[in-house]
Amino acid sequence: MYLTQGLQRALQQTPERIVTICGERRRTFGEFGERVARLAAALQGLGMQAGDRVSMLAMNSDRYVEYMYGTWWGGGVLNPVNIRWAVAEIVYSLDDCDTRLLLVDDHFLPLVEGIRSTARHAPVFIYAGDGQAPQGMLDYETLLAEATPVADAGRGGQDLACIMYTGGTTGFPKGVMQTHLNLWSACVQRMAEINQGRDQRDLHVMPLFHIAGLARLVCSIMVGSTQVILPAFDPAQVLRTLEQEQVTDTVLVPTMILGLLAHPDFSRRDLSRFKRLTYGASPSVGAMIEQVVAKLPHLQLAHSYGLTEACPIVSTNPPQNHSPEARKNGLAGSVGRSGLGVLVKIVDEQGDEVPRGTVGEVIVRGPNIMQGYWNKPEETARALRDGWLHTGDGGYMDAQGYLFIVDRLKDMIVSGGENVYSAEVENVVARHPAVAMCAVIGIPHPQWGEAVHAVVVCNPGVKSSEDEIRAHCREYIASYKCPKTVEFRDALPLTGAGKVLKRDLREPFWVNNR
Amino acid sequence: MYLTQGLQRALQQTPERIVTICGERRRTFGEFGERVARLAAALQGLGMQAGDRVSMLAMNSDRYVEYMYGTWWGGGVLNPVNIRWAVAEIVYSLDDCDTRLLLVDDHFLPLVEGIRSTARHAPVFIYAGDGQAPQGMLDYETLLAEATPVADAGRGGQDLACIMYTGGTTGFPKGVMQTHLNLWSACVQRMAEINQGRDQRDLHVMPLFHIAGLARLVCSIMVGSTQVILPAFDPAQVLRTLEQEQVTDTVLVPTMILGLLAHPDFSRRDLSRFKRLTYGASPSVGAMIEQVVAKLPHLQLAHSYGLTEACPIVSTNPPQNHSPEARKNGLAGSVGRSGLGVLVKIVDEQGDEVPRGTVGEVIVRGPNIMQGYWNKPEETARALRDGWLHTGDGGYMDAQGYLFIVDRLKDMIVSGGENVYSAEVENVVARHPAVAMCAVIGIPHPQWGEAVHAVVVCNPGVKSSEDEIRAHCREYIASYKCPKTVEFRDALPLTGAGKVLKRDLREPFWVNNR
Repeated sequence: MYLTQGLQRALQQTPERIVTICGERRRTFGEFGERVARLAAALQGLGMQAGDRVSMLAMNSDRYVEYMYGTWWGGGVLNPVNIRWAVAEIVYSLDDCDTRLLLVDDHFLPLVEGIRSTARHAPVFIYAGDGQAPQGMLDYETLLAEATPVADAGRGGQDLACIMYTGGTTGFPKGVMQTHLNLWSACVQRMAEINQGRDQRDLHVMPLFHIAGLARLVCSIMVGSTQVILPAFDPAQVLRTLEQEQVTDTVLVPTMILGLLAHPDFSRRDLSRFKRLTYGASPSVGAMIEQVVAKLPHLQLAHSYGLTEACPIVSTNPPQNHSPEARKNGLAGSVGRSGLGVLVKIVDEQGDEVPRGTVGEVIVRGPNIMQGYWNKPEETARALRDGWLHTGDGGYMDAQGYLFIVDRLKDMIVSGGENVYSAEVENVVARHPAVAMCAVIGIPHPQWGEAVHAVVVCNPGVKSSEDEIRAHCREYIASYKCPKTVEFRDALPLTGAGKVLKRDLREPFWVNNR
Repeated sequence: MYLTQGLQRALQQTPERIVTICGERRRTFGEFGERVARLAAALQGLGMQAGDRVSMLAMNSDRYVEYMYGTWWGGGVLNPVNIRWAVAEIVYSLDDCDTRLLLVDDHFLPLVEGIRSTARHAPVFIYAGDGQAPQGMLDYETLLAEATPVADAGRGGQDLACIMYTGGTTGFPKGVMQTHLNLWSACVQRMAEINQGRDQRDLHVMPLFHIAGLARLVCSIMVGSTQVILPAFDPAQVLRTLEQEQVTDTVLVPTMILGLLAHPDFSRRDLSRFKRLTYGASPSVGAMIEQVVAKLPHLQLAHSYGLTEACPIVSTNPPQNHSPEARKNGLAGSVGRSGLGVLVKIVDEQGDEVPRGTVGEVIVRGPNIMQGYWNKPEETARALRDGWLHTGDGGYMDAQGYLFIVDRLKDMIVSGGENVYSAEVENVVARHPAVAMCAVIGIPHPQWGEAVHAVVVCNPGVKSSEDEIRAHCREYIASYKCPKTVEFRDALPLTGAGKVLKRDLREPFWVNNR
């Protein structure tokens, strides 16, 4: 099983069907296949060997899809760059997995020099924009025009397909190793539960560097349907596109959904073709569900719970669990039951399964589970034990196997659909000379679900300010990870063992929100 | 990925749901899971190690399903016995893959002594019937009652799941090696194309020793639905069961479908719940489709093309291709397009892809393709070349990728849904002292699709008769493989290279039938 199979099948069966719609540009599977085979040849010509990593730093576009399939077709491995990252984080990931080829669009040209001057091995830069390639960069379209299409390298199964970086609890992002088999089975698992067909039209507005966006795209190419691609989330543009391109399916995070519903254009758009909306990545969604049901009663809602390490879907709460009855009896608050081929257990600290209804750690097993973290055997061993992925999420399971997520044991904040690891932010805050101690938590935010909040204890006799701490953080980490608010205290609540009692810090903020 | 995952998921989510209905006996997933874990323990107690083969020689029953899952749960490999086989063939397969455990139901007790006395290693016989275990056999229910349930051995992925014997062109059956991954992906592939749910009720009347029956069952257990099991095909019983058990789904071969439609009970039964019928394994189905559409207009028909080596589905012609229009324009005569993750090509004798519309050999690639033939490296190398399974079937593909099967290059006869390899029958016929030369072909038969027909040239001055040849064959091979008719000639048409021109032999029989 390999990820280019779906493309090969579409090339054989529906070469005339439109595969990508990106602004005014529409390409058929036939054209896409030709460009993919040319890009594969070009990447090989630039030295890409089987298993080599290739990165892209870009907003969503049809070229992003070509990058994915061209890399796989040529035998390479994706290493997509998080577009929110600062240069230091980008360079860390490129260095960590020794990536020598980097595609960049117009939007990220300002970062090129910083990457070039600080990376251990400066990568070959390929300009994948619509203008003229800047000096020192190869031109994507020229490379394609000059290449001779090659045959599919046929990598698959246990071969690596993607190394995707996710925040690390130790403060360093970790490269999640996903094989062709992992992504293939995650997609097919989803398809076996939610009926999909060639006639659907998927809108891709979740960032493609993120597993939720990437896996959804892989799924749709496997089915052979049409992909409508937007560079990023803009509510007016999304509403217009849903109407104009007759989109049937999409996946969004609750923050985006609330943004659409609240937009003045919402009531002006005809969304009658829009059939299925999957959402995920937020701790409390009850109010959002009520709003969606009230405003788009024909829409089938599904809630997916997942993580990068599971490529990503662990469970899906299907449309029938969003009925008035399910919203009353609480089933709408579940993240559903484990998907096809996926096993989920709730265990205590000793690894023993707890009785139904008892909170414990969610652990997951299945063909979708990653191979481990790149170059991080210790963290891999902690995450994967006896074949089970330890998610770090706290949850319980009811008698029918429905899963409810109640807490994030691994101390992560989900803000606007992005995971922020407290430890990573704490490491940066602590580097500020005024800071003696700090704790970073998520607090409720009406738009982002959670906002990053720092509680700081200063060194004796030293003072700092919210602005100073925030400015300090912006030097080192992406702005979405930086504390939105900073609070100064004389001391932090500690356990007997000296660990910060984060639950006590969070409690006052959440008491009226859960 | 492993085949017991679906069961584990059902045990967690729907332990109270009925999983098997077999006559008056109904078992829930909870009960079934308990029995599976006990059977696994019993088999281990009898010496079954991880990877060891376990056979069953029985009509369909709920115990057959327990045998499948109990063997997998305990780490073993299925080696299901073809119930049509003669003792010599059974012993050949047991010896060939060194099977030491054999479950037998009441129906096949008469074969036990023959197997015991001729097998290289007499297996341990387990009586899996409803009466008293005969002397020299262990009792299935006693073994279960006395066992302590064990945990799932957790075999999966590339571990062998099943060795299933199929007729060989060289005259010996070949053990097709199917892994957990093969069967899993074949099932999920099907599910991703045909929407299935826990609420469906599958009727299993195709023999479970056969891949079409076994894979369908695996699929349904994976979904977590209810299985209605009949020991064998009896039209009155099938019609009664479809009505009484409110069956929604089944798979049948055209011979069976025609038998149902022609039965006097047909018009007396309420088949309104019966929704989806998959059929396969016959060269010409046009007349059958017209009859089904006329008599069961609400039924969704799907045609699957497959083979044991593909576990089994290669392609499926979906319900929409059975519309009046598709029946007029010929699309209803296709076997559909390659399934999800499966690639199909039509190649010439040099292995090069031929233009659309040109007949060549059908070759197939995908995660469902077998690992090879047990202990037969040469035949494996002939069948699997560069990752492609060479089916031996002749066919062509239209511009939209629809596959049409036109001939069986590997000289196989399909009679009542069973594959009969001419070479195997010819080897037996040729052993008769009167026979100088023979050729075995398939000729049209109104009920079986094809019937086995032998053309024989006797030794000079020697005479034989149809009855004598047929009686001779029945000593060595299953009765469905024995020639139904025997014709004597003075000579056979030969090619310049001395090969029998079978096409010339077949032509007169088929001229008005294709």
